[in-house]
Amino acid sequence: MKHFLGLFDFSPDELDRLVALARRLKSGEAGDEARAIRGRIFGMVFFNPSLRTRSSSEAAMLRFGGHALTLSVGGDAWRLEHRDGAVMDGDRAEHVREAAAVLGRYCDVLGVRTFAQMHDAAEDAADTVLQTFAKYAGVPVVSLESAVEHSCQGMADMMTLAEKLGPTPGKRFVLTWAPHVKGLPMAVPHSAMLAAAAAGMNVTIAHPPGYELGEAFLDRAQQWCAAAGASLAVTDDQRTACRDADAVYAKSWGNPAMYGDPDAQKDDFRRHADWMIGPRHLGKPTTVLMHCLPVRRNVVIADSAMDDPRCAVIDQAENRLWTQAAVLSTMLSKIQ
Amino acid sequence: MKHFLGLFDFSPDELDRLVALARRLKSGEAGDEARAIRGRIFGMVFFNPSLRTRSSSEAAMLRFGGHALTLSVGGDAWRLEHRDGAVMDGDRAEHVREAAAVLGRYCDVLGVRTFAQMHDAAEDAADTVLQTFAKYAGVPVVSLESAVEHSCQGMADMMTLAEKLGPTPGKRFVLTWAPHVKGLPMAVPHSAMLAAAAAGMNVTIAHPPGYELGEAFLDRAQQWCAAAGASLAVTDDQRTACRDADAVYAKSWGNPAMYGDPDAQKDDFRRHADWMIGPRHLGKPTTVLMHCLPVRRNVVIADSAMDDPRCAVIDQAENRLWTQAAVLSTMLSKIQ
Amino acid sequence: MKHFLGLFDFSPDELDRLVALARRLKSGEAGDEARAIRGRIFGMVFFNPSLRTRSSSEAAMLRFGGHALTLSVGGDAWRLEHRDGAVMDGDRAEHVREAAAVLGRYCDVLGVRTFAQMHDAAEDAADTVLQTFAKYAGVPVVSLESAVEHSCQGMADMMTLAEKLGPTPGKRFVLTWAPHVKGLPMAVPHSAMLAAAAAGMNVTIAHPPGYELGEAFLDRAQQWCAAAGASLAVTDDQRTACRDADAVYAKSWGNPAMYGDPDAQKDDFRRHADWMIGPRHLGKPTTVLMHCLPVRRNVVIADSAMDDPRCAVIDQAENRLWTQAAVLSTMLSKIQ
Repeated sequence: MKHFLGLFDFSPDELDRLVALARRLKSGEAGDEARAIRGRIFGMVFFNPSLRTRSSSEAAMLRFGGHALTLSVGGDAWRLEHRDGAVMDGDRAEHVREAAAVLGRYCDVLGVRTFAQMHDAAEDAADTVLQTFAKYAGVPVVSLESAVEHSCQGMADMMTLAEKLGPTPGKRFVLTWAPHVKGLPMAVPHSAMLAAAAAGMNVTIAHPPGYELGEAFLDRAQQWCAAAGASLAVTDDQRTACRDADAVYAKSWGNPAMYGDPDAQKDDFRRHADWMIGPRHLGKPTTVLMHCLPVRRNVVIADSAMDDPRCAVIDQAENRLWTQAAVLSTMLSKIQ
Repeated sequence: MKHFLGLFDFSPDELDRLVALARRLKSGEAGDEARAIRGRIFGMVFFNPSLRTRSSSEAAMLRFGGHALTLSVGGDAWRLEHRDGAVMDGDRAEHVREAAAVLGRYCDVLGVRTFAQMHDAAEDAADTVLQTFAKYAGVPVVSLESAVEHSCQGMADMMTLAEKLGPTPGKRFVLTWAPHVKGLPMAVPHSAMLAAAAAGMNVTIAHPPGYELGEAFLDRAQQWCAAAGASLAVTDDQRTACRDADAVYAKSWGNPAMYGDPDAQKDDFRRHADWMIGPRHLGKPTTVLMHCLPVRRNVVIADSAMDDPRCAVIDQAENRLWTQAAVLSTMLSKIQ
Repeated sequence: MKHFLGLFDFSPDELDRLVALARRLKSGEAGDEARAIRGRIFGMVFFNPSLRTRSSSEAAMLRFGGHALTLSVGGDAWRLEHRDGAVMDGDRAEHVREAAAVLGRYCDVLGVRTFAQMHDAAEDAADTVLQTFAKYAGVPVVSLESAVEHSCQGMADMMTLAEKLGPTPGKRFVLTWAPHVKGLPMAVPHSAMLAAAAAGMNVTIAHPPGYELGEAFLDRAQQWCAAAGASLAVTDDQRTACRDADAVYAKSWGNPAMYGDPDAQKDDFRRHADWMIGPRHLGKPTTVLMHCLPVRRNVVIADSAMDDPRCAVIDQAENRLWTQAAVLSTMLSKIQ
C-alpha cells in the first residue's frame, strides 16, 4: 500500500484485513501490531476545517507513540496553487508541487483534506489537489477526505458494521439521502456505499430523483456486491428501502444540477423535508442508525432518532481512531 | 474528583491539597506524583482565544510525559450548538452532545474554554456550554475558563498567595476592580475571591456601585471565610481597602446593567479612570500585586506598578502550569 | 550562544560549526549530538503565517525527542503591544513584556516570527518585536524570520551551498532580485548574502536601481568576504552576473522608496518582468538554482527552471530541519 486515497483503489479483501487489524488494536490485544507508528511523524494539511478527522488522527499517532503535525492552509499557511503551468500572480503564494515535496521531507506520511468545490462535477471527479499531493509528496499520502471519497470515514463505517451486525455478508444496508441547509459533497456517501459493498451486504441507495451518485463509484460498488453474491439497488422510495434494513446510513448530499444555485438547492431540500430520518425509519429493534457526523439535529436526523439506543454515530466516530491507526501503521510498516 | 469545573464545587481542604501537590511538582521533588499524566491525551476545545491557558496546559502535559490536542471552534472546527431541541438550520453545524462524546472517545480528559456571552446575566450564570460538555463527554472535563469561573486561574492564584505570603489564614486580600476598554466577564474575580477565601484570608472586594459580583459566589466565599474565622467585606472605597493589604488583586469586569451597551460601559470606565492601579495602592513594602493577565498597561495597571518588584503576575502565570499539572494528574489517577 | 536572532551576530566560524553539526545530524551519524533536545519544549509565536518554518521546527524537535508548542498571534491568541510606555486602550490586549516572560516560564526556548511592516525602513531596521522578546523571555530566543533577517533560512542556505558545491571558498554566488506581485521584506536576501559571505564565496548582488539592501548587512557581508579573500559586488546587470555563477539565488524584495505605494511597486515589477529567472540564468551544467520558498512559479522563476534538475529548492527546504536541530540543540546544551 503506497497511498491511501480511496476505498476505490483497494480490494474488499484488503479493506477487510485493515478492519480486522483495527478491531485488534481497539481490543487492546495487538498494540504491538501498530509499532510502525512509534517515533513517526504524520503531517496533515487541512484545506477545510475538521473536528473528528484531525483529533482522531492525532490521537491515532499519539496512542501508539507517534507524532502529528497539522497545518491549516489559509490559516497557519497561505493558499496553494495546484494547476500545472499557472502564472502565479493571484492569491496563491505556493504550488502544491513544492508544498507536498517539502512536507514529505519533514514527515513520514502526509494527510490531506480537501473538499469538492461543487462548481463543476467533472473537475471534482478529477480530485486534482489530492492527486497532485500524492504525485509530489515523496512519501505515502492518506486522504482525510477528498473531492470524491472520505476513505477514512468509509473504513470506520465498515468496522462499525462488522462490530454491530456480526458477519455482514447478505445483511441489508440502506444509504438514504436526507435534507440539509446546503448542498454537500458526495465523498461520504461514495465511501459508505463502497464500505457496505466491500462488506458483502445487500446495498440500497435511496434518494430523490437528480441526486445520483458518481457512476464510477456505483459501478465499483455494484461489482463488489455481485462478487459477494449480493445486490445493489437504487430507489426513490425511502420508506420501503428502510423497512427491513439492518443498517440505515443517513447522509445529505447536493444535486449536481444545482451546483452554483443555492436557492434552487434550498427549495429542493424543503420539497423533500419529509426525508429527515426519524425512529420510523428504523424498522427493526436491531436496526443500526449511522451518520458520519457532524449532523444537524432536526434537519438531517430528528432528536428522537439521534437519542435512540440504536444510534451508533459515536461508536462510528470512535472507530475513526482505530481504523486510521490500522491504515497508518500498515503504510508505515512498508517504509524504513 | 470527576470534573474540575469550578472552585465552587470543592472544599477549601480539597483545594489546599491540590496547591500542596502543585508546589511539590514545581520544586521538582515529586515528579512521580504526576505519573498519571504519562501517555495520556488532554483534548482542549477553545471557543475563545488563549495564550497562557493553552500553552500552560500543553506544557503541563508535555513536562510529565503526556500529550495535548487542541481545537479552535470556529477556526479549526465549525461552530457548535448547545441548546436542547434546536432545529439546527443556522450556522452551527454540530451539537455539543456529539462533539463532546466523540472527543471523549479520543482523549482521556477534556478541557473547555468558553466565555460569558454578556447579553443576559442569568443565561451566563447557567454556564450551559461547559455543563453540556461535562454531561456528554464520558471522560473528566476541566474548565479552561467558563462563563462563571476561571478555576485554573483561581488555583494558580491560591498557590501564588501561599508562595508569596507564607501561611495565608488571617492575612488581608483585596480584590479591586479596575477600568478597561470594554466590559469583561466575572469569571476571574469569582475564582480569585474563592481562592483567597479558601486560603482563609480576610477578603475585601472593592468596586464602584453597580459592579456587584455573582451572589452565589459571594455567598460561598463568605461561608469559607467564616469557617476560617476570617471576614469578607465589600466596599466602594478602594484606597482604604488597599491600605493594609498583604495582596492586591487587580481586575476589571463589566457592569451587568450595561451588558449590550458598550458606550455606557466606556463612559463608566472613564468616570472611574482613577481606579487604575498604581504603586500608591501597594501600601506596604511586602504587598504583593496580582493580576491574571493579559493586562492592559496604563489602563488597568500603570507601568510603574507592573514594573515594581512587588508585582507577581509572571509567577502567577507560571503557577498555571504547576496547578494544572496537579489537577490533571489527580483526575487521571482516578481512571484506568 | 544565548539567542539566535541573526547571522549578523555570529562569526563565520561559529556558523560553519553549526552547518557541520547539521550535516552530521542529517547523515544520521550523530543523533546523540542533539540529545539536548530530548524532553525540551520549543514554544513558537507566529505573528505571520508559515508552512516550512513551523513544520520544520516541529519536526526538528520531534525527531530528536523534544516537543513543540505553537501560538498564532491574532489567531489562537490576541494581538501584542511592543512599544514601551504605551497606553493600551486599542486592539492590543497584552504587552510583549508579559507574553515573552510568561512563555519563557512554560518553554525551554522560544521562537518568534515577525515580518517587516514595510511602512518605515528605519523602524523595520530596529527589529523591535524580536528584540523585545529576547529581552524579556528569560530563556533563549530563536528568530523564525524577523524584520531584518531570516536566519534559520540563511543557515539552511549555507548548508545547501556546502552540500551542493563541496568546498565553497572562492566559488561564485549570485543573489539576484526577481519580480513579484507585491513588495516583500529584505530578511531573506540579507541572510542569504551573509550565508554566502560566511562561506567565503565571491558574492554578487544583482538588482535594478533602487532595490539596495540594508547598508549594515552589506557592510558585514563585505567584511566576511574580504576576510576570506573573496569579493562582494553589486550590479544591475543580471545576465552578466549569472554567467559563471556556481549558485544562483533568486529572490524578490521591495523597493524602500515604494513602501506604502503598491501601485508604483507593481508598475516597477512590470517594468522589470524580464528579471524572472529561467534556464538561461543557469550558465553552467552544474549551476545550482536556489530560492527560499514559497515561490510564485512563472512570476519569480519560470516552470522550466523550477523543474530543472539543477533546482535545489526542495533540498534547501529539507535543510531547514537539520540546521534548526543544530541551532536548537546547541542552545539547549548550554542550559540545564
